[in-house]
Amino acid sequence: MNAPPLAAAAEVDAVVVGSGPVGLFQVFQLGLLGIHSHVLECLPHPGGQCTELYPDKPIYDIPAVTVCTGHELTQRLLQQIAPFHASMHFGHEVRTLTRQADRRFLIETSQGLQLVTKTVFIAAGVGAFKPRTLPISGLESFTGSQVFYAGEPTSTFAGQQVVVVGGDDAALQQALQLCHGNDDNSSHKAASVTLLHRRDVLQATDERVQRMHALCASGTMRFMVGQITGLTESEGKLTHIEVLGVDGLSLNVPLNTLSVQLGLSPKLGPIADWGLAMERRQLQVDAEHFSTSEPGIFAVGDINTYPGKKKLILCGFHEATLAAYAAAEYVFPDKRLPVQYTTTSPSLQQLLGVASRMD
Amino acid sequence: MNAPPLAAAAEVDAVVVGSGPVGLFQVFQLGLLGIHSHVLECLPHPGGQCTELYPDKPIYDIPAVTVCTGHELTQRLLQQIAPFHASMHFGHEVRTLTRQADRRFLIETSQGLQLVTKTVFIAAGVGAFKPRTLPISGLESFTGSQVFYAGEPTSTFAGQQVVVVGGDDAALQQALQLCHGNDDNSSHKAASVTLLHRRDVLQATDERVQRMHALCASGTMRFMVGQITGLTESEGKLTHIEVLGVDGLSLNVPLNTLSVQLGLSPKLGPIADWGLAMERRQLQVDAEHFSTSEPGIFAVGDINTYPGKKKLILCGFHEATLAAYAAAEYVFPDKRLPVQYTTTSPSLQQLLGVASRMD
Repeated sequence: MNAPPLAAAAEVDAVVVGSGPVGLFQVFQLGLLGIHSHVLECLPHPGGQCTELYPDKPIYDIPAVTVCTGHELTQRLLQQIAPFHASMHFGHEVRTLTRQADRRFLIETSQGLQLVTKTVFIAAGVGAFKPRTLPISGLESFTGSQVFYAGEPTSTFAGQQVVVVGGDDAALQQALQLCHGNDDNSSHKAASVTLLHRRDVLQATDERVQRMHALCASGTMRFMVGQITGLTESEGKLTHIEVLGVDGLSLNVPLNTLSVQLGLSPKLGPIADWGLAMERRQLQVDAEHFSTSEPGIFAVGDINTYPGKKKLILCGFHEATLAAYAAAEYVFPDKRLPVQYTTTSPSLQQLLGVASRMD
Repeated sequence: MNAPPLAAAAEVDAVVVGSGPVGLFQVFQLGLLGIHSHVLECLPHPGGQCTELYPDKPIYDIPAVTVCTGHELTQRLLQQIAPFHASMHFGHEVRTLTRQADRRFLIETSQGLQLVTKTVFIAAGVGAFKPRTLPISGLESFTGSQVFYAGEPTSTFAGQQVVVVGGDDAALQQALQLCHGNDDNSSHKAASVTLLHRRDVLQATDERVQRMHALCASGTMRFMVGQITGLTESEGKLTHIEVLGVDGLSLNVPLNTLSVQLGLSPKLGPIADWGLAMERRQLQVDAEHFSTSEPGIFAVGDINTYPGKKKLILCGFHEATLAAYAAAEYVFPDKRLPVQYTTTSPSLQQLLGVASRMD
């Protein structure tokens, strides 16, 4: 990791790990207390499980919101926290978290960002969403040169012999794009496209499946049913993958680029190594401050556990609120912060950037 | 109290006391667990403090609702709980609550309604909103015959010598109406209208104040500044009130009807007499079940207290949720109710009356 030297670390008051609904609302409650947040999110966008697992599915139990999708909930919360101008760091996974001599925490991210913070809020849900990988020995060393995961631009595959692994909409969409080139740029066509899935039933829209079959019929795409069992390399290059078909026969498939489109799966990641008290992979907190076993580190939302815990978004909103008040004692040790109401407090309304409505 | 005999008491699973936002959301969470609620509300309408204290003022800290008024929040929650068809009992104040031999509770209301219930949820906020009264000895005995409070129909005052006490919009609106009769029925005009306020500054819209001054100028209305200090009765009838003016002089004002329009003030009322553990007029609960000291009676929202308690609506939503799960053990002692998600559970979606969206 080419992290900048420690002297370059930014000194901040609060770091929120995760940008799902509870992480976003944590920013809001901290903002109302006058605390600016830095948010670390391993994905390139906010929303957490709402965005990864059910962006288009309805949620009915957000209080006072009869129905909204995961995407809509995220958008509503982003709008609500906008007045607080949180520093959003997308594509950053927390790698290390270390208590300093001055009792603050040094956080280093996967992109080398260093933050020295008074408080940490772990709102990481079920963990960081990472692309599912293939358990093939030796494959990892080609990541970024010949093996790619979700989010890679089409241009990477231009002119290549590509094998796309997967059977859902994302996999089919990419395979179809590589046959045609990008909408804007047909030079992004791959030299050859093979779609490889472990069974012959695809979990994609009928329209995409039909287009795929048509391309296979015309010889533009190849569809294989089987599983990768090994690889061949030559002079430091990946040249073939070994595919075990449903007929029990193995084939060596030549390629120079492998696109793994097996979706995302959550991983607790380094959080499990920070020495915080845990119970069944949840962080233990108290129901008064939502503090972990490490003073200054709070845990809110699906990642925490306490007596009575229910993994519901609305409970996470409450947890983030009480955690914010508890954290204020670390950020402003000499100030007592009573509860104020957004309906009546001119200072909260100033923070929110809304004109005080006098009656 | 002319309550029906005990045999007529309806047997129910859950009684929610109060219909503020937290009481309404209590109905929602109970509904998701398959428990039907009876709601007792002392006012003629739902909303609690949201409706009484800030119907038109903006609230900014309901998660995922950037801004809404107290009235709008109430409407949103009423819409959200509509699928559960709660039995709403408006104008009912709980008078007595008694544990029966079978461990259920017998509740009797001010209107004589009797309910035998397995669980009780006290969501009474700062208490029941009651009209502010005048501390004048002997006045109470005329309540309902010659002394009236908020909500009385105009027809009550038709043809009467009326004194309206108060200086806000509600008081002015009534005084103006009594000068003109009802919009639909000019026979509802009073014989004479006196507006009495303790000072000469009125807290009402300019338009109403101007109309009042015009009516005073034309001799249709009389405006007095002063305070009621006593009354005169004759043959069991209230005939005069004694008004102490700002000049230090007392006047005897003849009347046959007194309309007290001094707004509402919350009173904890009989709840304080139920033997539940309290701390500074809040009901003590645990943060796991939000149970009071009496098993089966829960307290949620502003009326409860526990370590870390913040009097915020969003916290009440969480409390109502955990209380609902805890209460389910009383309603369904043999059933284990795991957390289900409205996004994915067909049985919850059936309860909500929404078609399951398949993907």
